[in-house]
Amino acid sequence: MPRVSEAHLAARRRQILDAARACFARNGFHATSMQDVVVESGLSMGAVYRYFKSKDDLIQAIAEEVVGMLVGQIDHLIDARPLPPLIQVLDGVLAVVEAQTGPDGVVRMAIQVWGEALRNPRLSDLLARVYPTIRAAFVRLAARARDEGQLPQHTDPEQVGSVLFGLVPGYFLQLILVGDVNRADYLAGLDALLEAPLRPRP
Amino acid sequence: MPRVSEAHLAARRRQILDAARACFARNGFHATSMQDVVVESGLSMGAVYRYFKSKDDLIQAIAEEVVGMLVGQIDHLIDARPLPPLIQVLDGVLAVVEAQTGPDGVVRMAIQVWGEALRNPRLSDLLARVYPTIRAAFVRLAARARDEGQLPQHTDPEQVGSVLFGLVPGYFLQLILVGDVNRADYLAGLDALLEAPLRPRP
Repeated sequence: MPRVSEAHLAARRRQILDAARACFARNGFHATSMQDVVVESGLSMGAVYRYFKSKDDLIQAIAEEVVGMLVGQIDHLIDARPLPPLIQVLDGVLAVVEAQTGPDGVVRMAIQVWGEALRNPRLSDLLARVYPTIRAAFVRLAARARDEGQLPQHTDPEQVGSVLFGLVPGYFLQLILVGDVNRADYLAGLDALLEAPLRPRP
Repeated sequence: MPRVSEAHLAARRRQILDAARACFARNGFHATSMQDVVVESGLSMGAVYRYFKSKDDLIQAIAEEVVGMLVGQIDHLIDARPLPPLIQVLDGVLAVVEAQTGPDGVVRMAIQVWGEALRNPRLSDLLARVYPTIRAAFVRLAARARDEGQLPQHTDPEQVGSVLFGLVPGYFLQLILVGDVNRADYLAGLDALLEAPLRPRP
């Protein structure tokens, strides 16, 4: 029997993941079956199951890819020296995410997975594991912004990172579910908040 | 035939909506059928259908109640004179929403409805109609904060309102899906951002 090369295995895996994303985009996560993914991939049932045993496994693999991509892009943005203004970094991050809000994008899939996760402990565990990895990139961003004097010296990067992370779904949910926001306005709103020196302290 | 009183009609409607919320909380929005709601309500199929023709109708009625409640509470907070510090008002708003994140709360239902709305135009229309109503309350808050000197005079309340509105799902998604945030830290992070006088302007 010929040995199957690593490259061949990776290509097969890629083929299945692309098929799964196409199915999820077309029919939604809930309504997609493993059988649909098999048909879409053009491979045999046995071939697909050798790589992924369930929809949850597919989602996990897709989530890991997305997290890797997103964290890589954020880290690239925050590695710039000197650090660009926070607003500019966030603009870059939101642009990356916004590119994923279309019918084929992972953002719509993520929203569906949230709903499923409320009733599926495996998906819920997955989200509780991957989101802190993304948030950690925002914590690094907050720490750099503090170190470069863009945030007060007493800033706790964990606290600020959690808010910066929260601004992302706060943006794309309005974009997808309401449809009347744009990135420039959202960032201008954030900038006005950042520029709030007159407010009384609680 | 005796005339049915307004109070009786309202009580029936309440009974059905409470039954629907109990079903959605227990089994999820997707897996709940009208039949489940009928059984839970203890009324006849005909009685339930006289008030609500579909799950979408139930969700619409629940969404309208929730929006009314939420907007009322925000308006109450922002009507205080003088306006408390923005952070304090947001604390109040997040507390109201946080109270709805438990198993019976509307927040988990909302997350499930988002996923459904991506594939159901009626639900999608509903969300595109109700969310601007909630956001408008945050726009009023931003305008008041500007008028009272808590935000720069050139602040556009629409832009800032959109960010303040976005901070809410940014918080409760982390609370529900990751579980390791708390309101005090999130608000402290926001406060550090608000207090960012040193940052360079883009």
